[in-house]
Amino acid sequence: MSFFEKLTKRAKEIDSLLCVGLDPHKSELQEDSAEGAFRFCQHLIEDVACAFKPNAAFFEAYGSAGWEALQRTLQLIPKEIPIVLDAKRGDIGSTSEAYATSAFSTLACDSITASPYLGGDGLQPFLKDASRGVWVLCKTSNPGSQDIQALELPTGEPLYLHVAKLCFGTWAKEHQNAGLVVGATDVDAMEKIRAALPDVWFLSPGIGAQGGDLAKALKVGLREDGLGILLPISRGISKAENPKKMAETFRAEINALRAAR
Amino acid sequence: MSFFEKLTKRAKEIDSLLCVGLDPHKSELQEDSAEGAFRFCQHLIEDVACAFKPNAAFFEAYGSAGWEALQRTLQLIPKEIPIVLDAKRGDIGSTSEAYATSAFSTLACDSITASPYLGGDGLQPFLKDASRGVWVLCKTSNPGSQDIQALELPTGEPLYLHVAKLCFGTWAKEHQNAGLVVGATDVDAMEKIRAALPDVWFLSPGIGAQGGDLAKALKVGLREDGLGILLPISRGISKAENPKKMAETFRAEINALRAAR
Repeated sequence: MSFFEKLTKRAKEIDSLLCVGLDPHKSELQEDSAEGAFRFCQHLIEDVACAFKPNAAFFEAYGSAGWEALQRTLQLIPKEIPIVLDAKRGDIGSTSEAYATSAFSTLACDSITASPYLGGDGLQPFLKDASRGVWVLCKTSNPGSQDIQALELPTGEPLYLHVAKLCFGTWAKEHQNAGLVVGATDVDAMEKIRAALPDVWFLSPGIGAQGGDLAKALKVGLREDGLGILLPISRGISKAENPKKMAETFRAEINALRAAR
Repeated sequence: MSFFEKLTKRAKEIDSLLCVGLDPHKSELQEDSAEGAFRFCQHLIEDVACAFKPNAAFFEAYGSAGWEALQRTLQLIPKEIPIVLDAKRGDIGSTSEAYATSAFSTLACDSITASPYLGGDGLQPFLKDASRGVWVLCKTSNPGSQDIQALELPTGEPLYLHVAKLCFGTWAKEHQNAGLVVGATDVDAMEKIRAALPDVWFLSPGIGAQGGDLAKALKVGLREDGLGILLPISRGISKAENPKKMAETFRAEINALRAAR
């Protein structure tokens, strides 16, 4: 089963497009340590999530102990739930090969976020295993995404749209096992990318703390079949008094908007 | 002392622009393990290097044990030798903050390689400490660098040149503590970037296994003062029968070409 088949199966079974972010930011931990990061994540792993997205940076900040906490955290996630390792890796081929080993073998994650700046040969080591998914950074959710990603090319097309097309027309052509990171903070960009690529999955951060508009994002970003956007929420859930209840609330809100569109 | 002052001091004292890459690629290890990675690096740390460049990917592939091997490796490097953590990190601000903590506090490295794709706000957490250096990916040494980095903008300028100018005119304006990754495999690009930015340090991989032309790269890339390019070599040294002797040979070759230009 390919990653996107696994994701689709899970989304339908649990009726959820919610991706729970596991971001053990030190300011949110009861104890500023790798063990504190593990406990923080343990508390967030429940059953209304379509997928989980651990962010490597917040573990890495604790060195080898943090990396071990990441490994333990991943082991808590039931096998049927897809994992997005948010690592934004990307290097020349022989180095990306080692990052792919880390993500897919050592950590046994189903998918990873990766940067397109190095080009197709830097992404191949991630893309070559048809059973794994690669979320290629396209138009990210931060203000700085305007700096490079939104640059206009001589064709009149923004760079992010060129990246999106190159990704599916060339880089991931063989297995079509890529998705795109398209922030929910820029619905115009999302609309353009959806128009160009009607079938692709988006990973769309930006809802919650970053101020993205969920209703608009779903309106322009959902596919015809009502799927096609995975919505990661981190602080919006982890900072709630009852994270499980808050995750349920988000799932219900997303589903109400899906039904209404 | 800023990172680039430290680098300049070391380059002059040791009369070397050679950066020894610590790339414990599994195919080169006597034992395929984190301990094997550590021993591989231990063998490469000697005193003719201007700087060392450990590549995070090859440690990360061994999980938490690999990360611990990286920490132990870094402790072997004398304090006066600058360290380039080759990690190519880059994320939204709050996440890059955690990567900066990892690189500069937990691992205590002097500098890191970082991706510009997320834009200025994603680089700020690395750049905000004036004592640390940030090597921003500009024109990398792999063939895929043509895919995105070489795209022509409506101004007629390639994207990598725009990145280079934006980096120094805007992102790193405050502390001027950035360098640029400019592969030695594309001397035309190197020449253009040097013309635009006469004072900036380049980190220029591509010599050795990747086939870059050292003489041409030094001709177009060196600054007026005979410095300004740090030349990382990994496999070219680690695969030699006597790595220390090979490092000395590379240093001498680089210096002969510097003197002759």
